[in-house]
Amino acid sequence: MTVRHFRATVEYDGTDFAGFQWQQNFRTAQGVLESAIERRTGQSIRLTGAGRTDAGVHALGQVVSFGVETAIPIERMALALNSALPEDVAVSKVEETRADFNARFSASSRVYGYLILNGRVRSALWRRFSALHLEPLDVNEMQRAADLLLGERDFAAFANELQPDEPTMRNVMHCGVRRFGRFVFVRIEANAFLRGMVRTTVGTLMQVGSGARKAASIVELLETRDRRMAGPSAPAHGLCLIRVKYGERVSYASKGKS
Amino acid sequence: MTVRHFRATVEYDGTDFAGFQWQQNFRTAQGVLESAIERRTGQSIRLTGAGRTDAGVHALGQVVSFGVETAIPIERMALALNSALPEDVAVSKVEETRADFNARFSASSRVYGYLILNGRVRSALWRRFSALHLEPLDVNEMQRAADLLLGERDFAAFANELQPDEPTMRNVMHCGVRRFGRFVFVRIEANAFLRGMVRTTVGTLMQVGSGARKAASIVELLETRDRRMAGPSAPAHGLCLIRVKYGERVSYASKGKS
Repeated sequence: MTVRHFRATVEYDGTDFAGFQWQQNFRTAQGVLESAIERRTGQSIRLTGAGRTDAGVHALGQVVSFGVETAIPIERMALALNSALPEDVAVSKVEETRADFNARFSASSRVYGYLILNGRVRSALWRRFSALHLEPLDVNEMQRAADLLLGERDFAAFANELQPDEPTMRNVMHCGVRRFGRFVFVRIEANAFLRGMVRTTVGTLMQVGSGARKAASIVELLETRDRRMAGPSAPAHGLCLIRVKYGERVSYASKGKS
Repeated sequence: MTVRHFRATVEYDGTDFAGFQWQQNFRTAQGVLESAIERRTGQSIRLTGAGRTDAGVHALGQVVSFGVETAIPIERMALALNSALPEDVAVSKVEETRADFNARFSASSRVYGYLILNGRVRSALWRRFSALHLEPLDVNEMQRAADLLLGERDFAAFANELQPDEPTMRNVMHCGVRRFGRFVFVRIEANAFLRGMVRTTVGTLMQVGSGARKAASIVELLETRDRRMAGPSAPAHGLCLIRVKYGERVSYASKGKS
């Protein structure tokens, strides 16, 4: 049998995971996916995920790629994997791809959503998927600040644990802030995100929404390149990787990363 | 201190409850609410809920009423109770009421929502709040059937465990079926529901949507007054008590029930 290459769209409830990425002795989304693939194909492989979500972060549309020898027909792959996965992970779609498809490096952009429950009382039904913010948020001010993040910019001030020579330019294509009743939803899309960038962005936008920071201050904040000048990291459980796009495929090499 | 009377709006994730109603040795929403009231006021009281949701059924807008002696200011009541409640129950609102307000008998109608995940693959994020239905559902046919349920009718064919002389007339004011992507949402409002009526209705509408039953057959089904002629009960975890209305208050006595 020859190796076949797959692209799978994966949903998970991050509550009980120590993040996406495989770690020895921790329950991770990558770990349970690789176990399911092994149970169904007999092969122990390492897959690649488009986004390395933190502990507690959810995914509706994580994308993973892997190569494996198997005779399972493509239309049965999703059900085969789902029957070997725990209930907090589900594969919603599996497609066969070219060998050079890489879920991480072929992605043109990632879309994250952050759900804020803006009120004085917590929610029982939304407790796993939203973060409570007590002070009333001014969504219009948050949107003004969000607009200042758009485009190709240096996001060093929003990044955690940067390596010495790590490139910090990212292209934010969309950052929308909308209110739905007592919820505020932030949707942000970028070609790629630095570590901690989405949660720092949301934490900073919440400061703007509460009046603790002016919307216009975002411009200077970006210029400082200093993480200590940005807002706190918003809690993990409000965050969800909504979708990964492969519209304009950018190869690993052409992004100049190693 | 004199007894003050309260009306509270309550949200719960029904997953880990043996239903709303108090039961010895079982974890129920009523039980944990009464414990929270006792911890905050020192008094052991019995409260009344508007809807006796089954095990596994959720609530966004259950309403309960109770009388208790307490000096807690009304604006602090919700937070006081929430701090004594487990994370899967939350009080979203508390108001002070007249002594004759009864959450169950003063209600003019109840609104339930049922979320169907209509597809071949299960969902990790929605697993607690939706029921999977594999065959494609024809939402237009389901709506045609739903329209035949509207008005004051005898719903005996949709009820479980009827008592010998139990009245079975109910007034269904609304029954809407809508598709949102891979989800189908059924919203049903009635003055009151018989035991099992919402889940039997949804189970029957799913038969219509799958083509196993004709929409027009609902008329004859109602006439049979025979539960065995209706569809199966839809799973509990797709169901949620969305709201209880008190628009036109109907007193206990005037409804002719005991």
